[in-house]
Amino acid sequence: MTELAPQLGPAARRFNEYLHGLPDRYPARHERLQSALRYALLGAGKRVRPLLCHAAARAVDASDDDTWLVPAAALELIHTYSLVHDDLPAMDDDAWRRGRPTTHIAFDEATAILVGDALQALAFQVLTDDGPVPVSPQQQLAWVRTLAQAAGGQGMVDGQSMDCFAAAGTMDLTALETMHRHKTGALINAAVVMGAWCRSTPPSDDQITALTRYGQAVGLAFQVVDDILDVTSDTDTLGKDAGSDAAHDKVTYVSLLGLPAARRRAGELQAEALAALQTLPGDTAPLASIADYIVERLH
Amino acid sequence: MTELAPQLGPAARRFNEYLHGLPDRYPARHERLQSALRYALLGAGKRVRPLLCHAAARAVDASDDDTWLVPAAALELIHTYSLVHDDLPAMDDDAWRRGRPTTHIAFDEATAILVGDALQALAFQVLTDDGPVPVSPQQQLAWVRTLAQAAGGQGMVDGQSMDCFAAAGTMDLTALETMHRHKTGALINAAVVMGAWCRSTPPSDDQITALTRYGQAVGLAFQVVDDILDVTSDTDTLGKDAGSDAAHDKVTYVSLLGLPAARRRAGELQAEALAALQTLPGDTAPLASIADYIVERLH
Repeated sequence: MTELAPQLGPAARRFNEYLHGLPDRYPARHERLQSALRYALLGAGKRVRPLLCHAAARAVDASDDDTWLVPAAALELIHTYSLVHDDLPAMDDDAWRRGRPTTHIAFDEATAILVGDALQALAFQVLTDDGPVPVSPQQQLAWVRTLAQAAGGQGMVDGQSMDCFAAAGTMDLTALETMHRHKTGALINAAVVMGAWCRSTPPSDDQITALTRYGQAVGLAFQVVDDILDVTSDTDTLGKDAGSDAAHDKVTYVSLLGLPAARRRAGELQAEALAALQTLPGDTAPLASIADYIVERLH
Repeated sequence: MTELAPQLGPAARRFNEYLHGLPDRYPARHERLQSALRYALLGAGKRVRPLLCHAAARAVDASDDDTWLVPAAALELIHTYSLVHDDLPAMDDDAWRRGRPTTHIAFDEATAILVGDALQALAFQVLTDDGPVPVSPQQQLAWVRTLAQAAGGQGMVDGQSMDCFAAAGTMDLTALETMHRHKTGALINAAVVMGAWCRSTPPSDDQITALTRYGQAVGLAFQVVDDILDVTSDTDTLGKDAGSDAAHDKVTYVSLLGLPAARRRAGELQAEALAALQTLPGDTAPLASIADYIVERLH
């Protein structure tokens, strides 16, 4: 589960190399905090959001340089903090993640709360520091604005809150979709928009609209597939607890639609994502690969 | 405890008015999250950091308009999130704050974690959105950079982590001071630097140096006085649990120095803060009032 798609290998390797250097460039003085931050951040993630950011930059013909690494790292920092906090006993209470004990198990709850908090701040710090390629203040501000909107109480945290307090049986398909559009969709969407802002000239409104259509479809597809895998896969393959949704009595696409219809829905969203790419000026192959991979990991 | 100093009343009232409008301008869809966010944010705080930001803007002769409200709000959002998370059972486990039950008591732990996360993201969102007065991208970026550095794993969170894991008896005065310089000092320092960036032209290096000297002295003074009040005051007056340091077996200025020497240290830091103001070009009376108030609330 550590590779998103083989053709994205070079970008994934470049990103992991960059990410591995980050904690040492921003060392915390408190050793336990620093170890836990490295532990949480440098696990074997699929790097979906960073690779979406890279692929979106390609799709709008941004220069083929390392500009994308900075927003990609910020996205992974936010995503990782959300996992660390979501796994806490007061939230989803998960002990296993990315093939290893979760941060509060490997360390402790206080450290996991603090690591999440530090990771979120670090995301905004890297966006405003000098990166590997000089960028304009306008680009940096667009990155910060996009990420803060997507991450907070009108985006990812809102969705997580809906998810935490959804009473089983009271959530219909519309509510489930709203929850996911916030919980995972907002950050996935931010990934493609931040990628578009890797252009030295601002992306056009049409480009943002197309990428947003793609991002929303891929974001939902990702979640539908996650729900399916939670039922059909095992903990070793997933790298996290399988069957966790049922154990937590969670409403999912599978519990609402059944397996066959959930699979069909994933296919429809894949088609929707691919259709959105047609008007983009650059190389859309990487975005297409990601959409395909997200659905095809089912098989 | 809701007023920092009478002469700062107008700025404090203007700030509270602005702060009260914030949650409705960024409404979360999930009602419980939104209520808890309002609850946490709109309690009766002293607004030390916002008023420091305002006072620093005056001291560097920034235009006397509402520019300061935006960085001031961001500072209060970060400060509030840190209180909500610090009060959690896995951290300081405090039930009482700002004269009311803490957020995880009034709501629940999951909500308190999420509210803290949302407040942090909101801080960066308000800094990059349009505020009451147009500002330059350079100003917005300086605010984001300063705040992210101060809030994260090299600033406030680092200090909180040192504090959480400090074994009683193993912390000497140097370690205590390092911890406080991170835990509360970093954000107080950010407050004056962000205030200086309310100027439409960048503050000079000398101004930043003077404000940083002031900020560091005031930040430590604030903590020394907090440690003294924890011993000498009561819960009603403090609005939070008195005697909490001793109950948690925490090393404090009082436990290391004793009360008389701690009082002297507060006085020295007050003098240091006031001395730092001499080279600043604008009206330094508000900064002087805050330094005086911080120490004089002892009496």
